[in-house]
Amino acid sequence: MNILLMGFGIVGQSFIELLLQKQSEGFAIPRIVGVSTLRRGSLYHATGLDLAELRRAILTGHLDAYPEEAGLKRDLNGMALIEVAQAQVFIESTYTNLRDGQPAIDYCRAALERGMHLITANKGPIALAYPALRTLAEQKNRYLGFEATVMSGTPAIEIGLNTFRGAHITAIRGIFNGTTNYILTQMESGLSYTEALRAAQELGYAEADPTADVEGWDTLSKVLILANTLMGGNLTVADVARRGISHITGQDVDEERANNRRWKLLGSIERAEDGQLIARVEPQRLSLEDPLAMVSGITNAISYSTDLLGDVTLIGAGAGGMATAFALWADYLRIPRP
Amino acid sequence: MNILLMGFGIVGQSFIELLLQKQSEGFAIPRIVGVSTLRRGSLYHATGLDLAELRRAILTGHLDAYPEEAGLKRDLNGMALIEVAQAQVFIESTYTNLRDGQPAIDYCRAALERGMHLITANKGPIALAYPALRTLAEQKNRYLGFEATVMSGTPAIEIGLNTFRGAHITAIRGIFNGTTNYILTQMESGLSYTEALRAAQELGYAEADPTADVEGWDTLSKVLILANTLMGGNLTVADVARRGISHITGQDVDEERANNRRWKLLGSIERAEDGQLIARVEPQRLSLEDPLAMVSGITNAISYSTDLLGDVTLIGAGAGGMATAFALWADYLRIPRP
Repeated sequence: MNILLMGFGIVGQSFIELLLQKQSEGFAIPRIVGVSTLRRGSLYHATGLDLAELRRAILTGHLDAYPEEAGLKRDLNGMALIEVAQAQVFIESTYTNLRDGQPAIDYCRAALERGMHLITANKGPIALAYPALRTLAEQKNRYLGFEATVMSGTPAIEIGLNTFRGAHITAIRGIFNGTTNYILTQMESGLSYTEALRAAQELGYAEADPTADVEGWDTLSKVLILANTLMGGNLTVADVARRGISHITGQDVDEERANNRRWKLLGSIERAEDGQLIARVEPQRLSLEDPLAMVSGITNAISYSTDLLGDVTLIGAGAGGMATAFALWADYLRIPRP
Repeated sequence: MNILLMGFGIVGQSFIELLLQKQSEGFAIPRIVGVSTLRRGSLYHATGLDLAELRRAILTGHLDAYPEEAGLKRDLNGMALIEVAQAQVFIESTYTNLRDGQPAIDYCRAALERGMHLITANKGPIALAYPALRTLAEQKNRYLGFEATVMSGTPAIEIGLNTFRGAHITAIRGIFNGTTNYILTQMESGLSYTEALRAAQELGYAEADPTADVEGWDTLSKVLILANTLMGGNLTVADVARRGISHITGQDVDEERANNRRWKLLGSIERAEDGQLIARVEPQRLSLEDPLAMVSGITNAISYSTDLLGDVTLIGAGAGGMATAFALWADYLRIPRP
């Protein structure tokens, strides 16, 4: 199968690494026929791009450094590339925009319309437009994969969507943001919020503007995805009560520690008696007996409550280039073969 | 599809309950055409048995209490039933025999030979004869499901076998026996081994003869299953170093608690440099930072180490009628439909 890759940051580059690794292990790997970025150029070749050259080129800072070759097209913009590409799989890995999901939602729609399977690491399209994208994918009989959007390659989506399909998920709660969990874990060791945030920034876990993480927006996007894909919801951003961790002080942390409790920023979804989903993002005080209380540092976790199985908890990586690339690979392998 | 059910203990009865529940939710459920027990009779009807009557009959203590009906055959023995039954799915839920796996292995072989899909909750056939059964299932193009054999319905097998299929599992360790984990958890609260064992027996978690649990045989059977099904092994009982928990004293537990550690009976498999699998069952002292250290009571857990994803831990029920019946149901749903 031919792949068109939209976005070429850490996730896209790790995916190329993963393909090269699989190739060296003797696997047949798909061709990457196109790669498009917003500011670092784009490439298309109908018979496939050279993965090692692609890696070399992006490390120079611009895809212009990719060697010239007969049939190579440069600098098609994203939408133009989708229109011309002879590809069976579209991978969307551009940056998450939680305001309107664009331009990723338009890319995803166009790729499905052109008959490509859609795999996205971008949370925006799934958080904001899942029902419409799912309907379109079904109409076109194409696969829609989004394992990478929650807990990177840790299979939170696959388990909820397929492994549990004989049971009902009645509630979900979890730690879906590694940055805030790292900050709270550091505060357990005595750092102030400001010191812990700075440590996270120095390690590259938090961005210069940490708002998306510390105010709970990233967790909110995952809550939307889980509610709408695994629990049949149709929630929007405004439906999710949201509170971040920036107001939590060292004293708050110390007080709970004295009570054998820990603060954790949880995303949670439960079903009310009338069938409506109640979703929220907020710091909660967890007893040390709670499996989520022991999840420390940048690790993520999800607990599903089910009717037939009781509670099942999954703990694993929540981010990271290779872990996220694995999610794309796992989705790729799940595309039904004719 | 028609199902033939071998064994009708807690698991088989819970499976009937689950089917009745699914039916009441509006699902189309498979027919149970035959049920066979060793000492409580057997029933066969080509057009299906009545599930509510089946439940009533077994609660009297013998399937003789099932109402008479034209076409009903009674008291065929297990092998005879497999030979005559018009069924597409064989579910094996008789008691695990870790010495030679019989008569379950013969039943499984015969059912596959007759072209039935095989789903087993019985650990014996998978722990002792997986390579041969898998080959036979492949030759006959039939499904072989064994989710129920490890951690009941908690999807330890499905995740390792399918969800991670794009990655390599490099090691597995876990808490695979709820009885011993309950005993060790009670000892953390100050009970002696003998007191904790008695408490487990009173609650029905341990049997009158607790050897299979406390000496690690049950954990060993799960280690064999995981090694041979998820890590490509071909291990036998003699290949697994085994030590139980009956020698652990309250003093041992107290000493580790003083060091912020807990004793847990772990099953583990790792790959040596020469590619061989090293499998063992033994009590280990876990730091409280280890996700497995916090798994308490009868709960089970498995940690997979993978090349692309790092460590992923799954925590959930390890036993229970409905949780195990869910595993059978999940396997049933995974049978490829024509």
